[in-house]
Amino acid sequence: MSKELGIKAKKENLSEWYEEVVLKTQLADYSPVKGCIIYLPYSYAIWNLIKEEFTKIIKDEVSEVYFPLFIPKKILEKEAKHFEGFSPEVAWVTRGGDSDLDEWLAVRPTSETIIYSYISKLIKSYRDLPLRIIQWCNVVRWETKATKPFLRGREFLWHEGHTFHATFEEAEEEMKKRIYQYKDFVERYLAIPVIAGYKSEYEKFAGAHTTTTIETLLPDFKALQCGTSHNLADNFSKVFEIYFQDKDGKNKLVFQTSWGFSTRLIGALVMIHGDDKGLILPPKIAPYQIVIVPIYYNEEEKNLIFQKVKEIENKLKQKYRVISDLREEYTPGYKFNEWEMKGVPIRIEIGMNELKNKTLVIHRRDEMKKEIIKEEELESKINTLIEEIQSNLFNKAKKFLDEHIYVANNFEEFKEKIDKGFVIANHCGDQDCEEKIKELTKATCRVIEFDNNKPFGDEKCVLCGKKAKYKAYFARAY
Amino acid sequence: MSKELGIKAKKENLSEWYEEVVLKTQLADYSPVKGCIIYLPYSYAIWNLIKEEFTKIIKDEVSEVYFPLFIPKKILEKEAKHFEGFSPEVAWVTRGGDSDLDEWLAVRPTSETIIYSYISKLIKSYRDLPLRIIQWCNVVRWETKATKPFLRGREFLWHEGHTFHATFEEAEEEMKKRIYQYKDFVERYLAIPVIAGYKSEYEKFAGAHTTTTIETLLPDFKALQCGTSHNLADNFSKVFEIYFQDKDGKNKLVFQTSWGFSTRLIGALVMIHGDDKGLILPPKIAPYQIVIVPIYYNEEEKNLIFQKVKEIENKLKQKYRVISDLREEYTPGYKFNEWEMKGVPIRIEIGMNELKNKTLVIHRRDEMKKEIIKEEELESKINTLIEEIQSNLFNKAKKFLDEHIYVANNFEEFKEKIDKGFVIANHCGDQDCEEKIKELTKATCRVIEFDNNKPFGDEKCVLCGKKAKYKAYFARAY
Repeated sequence: MSKELGIKAKKENLSEWYEEVVLKTQLADYSPVKGCIIYLPYSYAIWNLIKEEFTKIIKDEVSEVYFPLFIPKKILEKEAKHFEGFSPEVAWVTRGGDSDLDEWLAVRPTSETIIYSYISKLIKSYRDLPLRIIQWCNVVRWETKATKPFLRGREFLWHEGHTFHATFEEAEEEMKKRIYQYKDFVERYLAIPVIAGYKSEYEKFAGAHTTTTIETLLPDFKALQCGTSHNLADNFSKVFEIYFQDKDGKNKLVFQTSWGFSTRLIGALVMIHGDDKGLILPPKIAPYQIVIVPIYYNEEEKNLIFQKVKEIENKLKQKYRVISDLREEYTPGYKFNEWEMKGVPIRIEIGMNELKNKTLVIHRRDEMKKEIIKEEELESKINTLIEEIQSNLFNKAKKFLDEHIYVANNFEEFKEKIDKGFVIANHCGDQDCEEKIKELTKATCRVIEFDNNKPFGDEKCVLCGKKAKYKAYFARAY
Repeated sequence: MSKELGIKAKKENLSEWYEEVVLKTQLADYSPVKGCIIYLPYSYAIWNLIKEEFTKIIKDEVSEVYFPLFIPKKILEKEAKHFEGFSPEVAWVTRGGDSDLDEWLAVRPTSETIIYSYISKLIKSYRDLPLRIIQWCNVVRWETKATKPFLRGREFLWHEGHTFHATFEEAEEEMKKRIYQYKDFVERYLAIPVIAGYKSEYEKFAGAHTTTTIETLLPDFKALQCGTSHNLADNFSKVFEIYFQDKDGKNKLVFQTSWGFSTRLIGALVMIHGDDKGLILPPKIAPYQIVIVPIYYNEEEKNLIFQKVKEIENKLKQKYRVISDLREEYTPGYKFNEWEMKGVPIRIEIGMNELKNKTLVIHRRDEMKKEIIKEEELESKINTLIEEIQSNLFNKAKKFLDEHIYVANNFEEFKEKIDKGFVIANHCGDQDCEEKIKELTKATCRVIEFDNNKPFGDEKCVLCGKKAKYKAYFARAY
């Protein structure tokens, strides 16, 4: 492997490996603005695919909108807990042109307040419910912790869904529907296995009645939140006075949900699937699913082979995202390394042998294995491979996740296992007790499963020994 | 027409008509943030279609990226003219969380400086050129003038293209290619006729060597800039030190262009095509191209007709964006008005007569005309109508534009015609003289055609009488 393309070993130093992969594959780069990255074409193409595929799933139910970037301070303050949660990380615009502003404007850290200050104009009667809107946009959170490309930054891209319902129960159902939709999407498209469930009281979204989450495990055994969905109940509709006229003629408060996932998912993709050679991208969201590399030794061969490359490309691009690497200043070996580093799932090699024998060499990135196939089998082979690679990546990641879930019957076991993955333990649900666990172990309560959360064994809280309220997954987290 | 749907007469008060159309069709609404609007689903869907169609045109040449929202003051200041031009309308972030920032951050008014401070990392040799990137994003300009939904606001959505070339000539060619691409796109998709050409020295983009523009005329005879493309030459590469190694081994400055169009185009659509009944949308960017309205008088008829509506919808939606209005709480008449107001190009009416005779009633919004067709002719009829409506809208708008271009041989004629449309006049090209014209008439030099700009008649400047440098289009503008 050429020096330029060399990647540090993933196991030795995950953090350095990660940074090197992000930079060398030109997914992203650091910008002159602290904590803000530049999304280069390769990562932006992944984000566009994620957006496109997720949009297909929800478009018949949810309308796209765009609300202002700025939120006047008075509006952000309205829901007290929400403001308390977000104000430490707000970027404030205090000047416009040459003048101080009368009222400071927050650069949106999330858009609940600006949307809810308006939405009552769209909701008159029960007939207008449920109302579901979504916006894909940038948000800013003034992180003071160390930032890491995609995983934690001051500006990121995301979507936020906001829905409005006639009853608490409908909002509860919506919240769950969306988190299951996220789980399904992240597992099927990004090949990232997640655990879905509730957040604890202490960890829930500022202003929410209930927060649900999907959580995965990264190779350094830290948990990563991959998406959240909140039942806001009438917490916001009360302060923003969002009423509807119900069938019985009475004016009632609406019940709400909000939910979102962000470009953080790109970081998860890199961390979970990558290896010492670089990225490995799941076919469903790979900007290029197939790269074709010609191998030739003279001009005559080149002409013959380029023709075949074009023929194969044209055939495959009806159905797949294909690139032919026809650069003449690089050797096939260099190109192999580069596209392996970039994580393209399938490589097709075509040389004079292949031309003669009407065969093709097919290389799959996930297993780093080559095989020779008959040219006539190409399309069915690619179909199968795309499916296989997608499920292979998921299965590997699922195996890793499953193998790093431990059960702690007491706090000694908890401490012993907490740097090795998720630890399932009984908990009293008490906020102070949860904070104490964090103090002692740096671990937080990540998720409480929906249907499998009854305390086990002695049914006592792993730390304080009081009667447990539930069992939960704990981990250190990003 | 019901009171709720009533629209003011367009001719009586264009400004009030415009506001009413924007609000009642739920394209957009005012937000609690002065000068920032809310893009409701209907306008966002139009913007998505514009984005989708334009992306198809450029995607093979230009890569999508995303650069930070914030620009450190030092970077924004680097190109002096650029900063001078933009600083009066910058929104400044001066606080993050609870602390004052060491360095103020501009919320991007445009991204030249943040992109160019980075881009040299991607450009090493002539082999990396030309490089073309684009970003679709929000930008903020702290307008102090009165704002108007879509046409002028403090935050808007746009794309900005940025390209990097080895020579001035290539940059010049790129600039022109893009402005012609815009002209073609705006005329063919939005049915808005424009005049393409240069901006004068006084009107050019802050920091540009040359600015080109496409300009149209609104019904109040004011000009509207619909897109711009700039040759930045090496003005920015000098200050940001963007070099490439040329074939001869020497390091040379790159030459650059930037170009963009914004959600302002939605305002132009409304203004130009709308009438006293509301919007008229060109089929190519209409969120719904066809609405199907059932007409029935009892439950039995309803069932029969709904079945036919679904059948027709399923057939048409293979190729078109179709909505069936099956709401039972509204009369057909109410629905007709509503969809006419929303500017859906084609309406299909289906009642018992149609069912019996195997016919359909087809109504076109642009001409407000109905015709009865055989059901079997439906698809070919729709194909034709979509084309016809698109070109009819363009032709009407083109006729209006052409009829409101005047030639002024002297300043008396200029003043007489300037409130009636574009006035072509000779000009000396002198900045003071141009400012003087603005002072006296509120008109500015909008565009100087590329190939047809030689002074005419006495070849003297319309105001100062000095030798004219060119003839140009003047108008009052948004």
